[in-house]
Amino acid sequence: MSGTLAAPVDVPSGAPARVPDPEPGDPRLARLSLNQRTVAGWSLRGAIDGCVAAGLPAIGVWREPLAEVGVDTGVGWLRDAGLRVSSLCRGGFFTSADGGARRRAHEENLRALDETAALGAPTLVLVPGGLPDGDRDLAGARARAAEAVAALAPEAAARGVRLGIEPMHPIFAADRGVVSSLRQALDIAEQLPADQVGVVVDTFHVWWEPDVLEQIARAGDRIVSYQVGDWITPLPPDALLSRGMVGDGHIDFTALTAAVAATGYVGDVEVEIFNADLWAAPGDEVVATLARRYVELVQPPLEASATQR
Amino acid sequence: MSGTLAAPVDVPSGAPARVPDPEPGDPRLARLSLNQRTVAGWSLRGAIDGCVAAGLPAIGVWREPLAEVGVDTGVGWLRDAGLRVSSLCRGGFFTSADGGARRRAHEENLRALDETAALGAPTLVLVPGGLPDGDRDLAGARARAAEAVAALAPEAAARGVRLGIEPMHPIFAADRGVVSSLRQALDIAEQLPADQVGVVVDTFHVWWEPDVLEQIARAGDRIVSYQVGDWITPLPPDALLSRGMVGDGHIDFTALTAAVAATGYVGDVEVEIFNADLWAAPGDEVVATLARRYVELVQPPLEASATQR
Repeated sequence: MSGTLAAPVDVPSGAPARVPDPEPGDPRLARLSLNQRTVAGWSLRGAIDGCVAAGLPAIGVWREPLAEVGVDTGVGWLRDAGLRVSSLCRGGFFTSADGGARRRAHEENLRALDETAALGAPTLVLVPGGLPDGDRDLAGARARAAEAVAALAPEAAARGVRLGIEPMHPIFAADRGVVSSLRQALDIAEQLPADQVGVVVDTFHVWWEPDVLEQIARAGDRIVSYQVGDWITPLPPDALLSRGMVGDGHIDFTALTAAVAATGYVGDVEVEIFNADLWAAPGDEVVATLARRYVELVQPPLEASATQR
Repeated sequence: MSGTLAAPVDVPSGAPARVPDPEPGDPRLARLSLNQRTVAGWSLRGAIDGCVAAGLPAIGVWREPLAEVGVDTGVGWLRDAGLRVSSLCRGGFFTSADGGARRRAHEENLRALDETAALGAPTLVLVPGGLPDGDRDLAGARARAAEAVAALAPEAAARGVRLGIEPMHPIFAADRGVVSSLRQALDIAEQLPADQVGVVVDTFHVWWEPDVLEQIARAGDRIVSYQVGDWITPLPPDALLSRGMVGDGHIDFTALTAAVAATGYVGDVEVEIFNADLWAAPGDEVVATLARRYVELVQPPLEASATQR
């Protein structure tokens, strides 16, 4: 080993890092959260340790890795590590045309709400679900999603958490999320109390929306989670894994982040990226890259706008 | 050869045909047009012959195969074959941040308009273009697209044709078409005279739009072309070639077609499908399949609604 550290490299691009690593304790990291799925190879234990090592104060937890260790154990680990849980991913999937399946989805969502409360997370992220097999009634599926959110809303309130409807990019309208724009998510959310139902703003999903800045302003205190990930081209072959590292693609994070901050949003910012190349990289390099990109591209407009308010 | 014809098979699915082949002269084919790119392997001559053999009365011509034979030759062939040209694909691509490039694009669009008029086609389809390399100002690119359409509008009028702004699925917002919804296309078109600027309704691009039926109704006589293609899952690896044969995917052609017909649209219906599996199939089987799917799924709501008016 020489006495000189190798210059840091961004993943998955392989390009030299553009800014120095923020050290643990750097105040610019105060609102940065790692969504667990960004490092798919890490268990909950690995993700907690990775966040602590990099100085991230928060984590977006997924239900499956939490279930692997059990909710009580996971809650204890997170408390002992001093990590906030910025959200629990994910509930939803309530578009089935079958009433029994929808009742089961409701019950599963109640369990997810229990977990959200146990984790002390402010919100349960709801992925609406896609069209049932062979069903072409998109309007019907959307109506069932809205009904299911309404049925869950008082259950969220009873547990002291909020539901976060996540509009998904129209690329997923058929098979994953029938709520396709922030405008549409707000049309649904606004039928219900703001302290029960909000929206998730994920840059990957909404960046293309022609009036996205106006819709963010409209959302106001309905924004329960702000997630960042980039749109890259050419689109990777697997559409589900088509998200890029912040700064690797076409999204203007300055404009979107400033708009979110201008609403008064003071929550964490989750980096959520599903990408096969990123998943193949070592987890600590993924976290180091996203921390650098966050302090370069996201944190400045987040705080600049907050200061102006 | 036995005396029995093999039962027809749909391409690219390989499934048995669901309805009998419509014969040339069948009145149900009276508005069916083959967009040339649906059979990428055919030259203009091949496409003309394929349409005539199958009894299709119209064709959507692309500029590149037309240029291969020359406009005069192509116009003569089409006239001799008795084919209508439902549209010319395509103009547009005017989002460059460089003024010189935009001027060149304008001039190229003038040539495309000349060709549209020479072909006797009612409309030139405009694909706006994507973000310039390294540019993240989507709003700026959209503004340039709107300006370019405005500059072309009187040129279209002078040639007796209409511009058709084609909103493209948000999957293409970064690299192909920055106009991402029918709502947005209409916001642009409505700044200009209806006899100069309209919109292209392509089911693949707009099916997911939350208020698509309302936007189609709003479009009214602005609809200059109705194109059909399906959204299939899983999405093929190449996003550009991700369109499916009508009926193979998730789109409700009944609702969309009835809405288009209800506006009073009396033009042709182009089948436009970019799909590698389809391109690998023999052209005559592609045309036979799309003709069957059209009379099964598109022609009935098209005519039912027209009758009700």
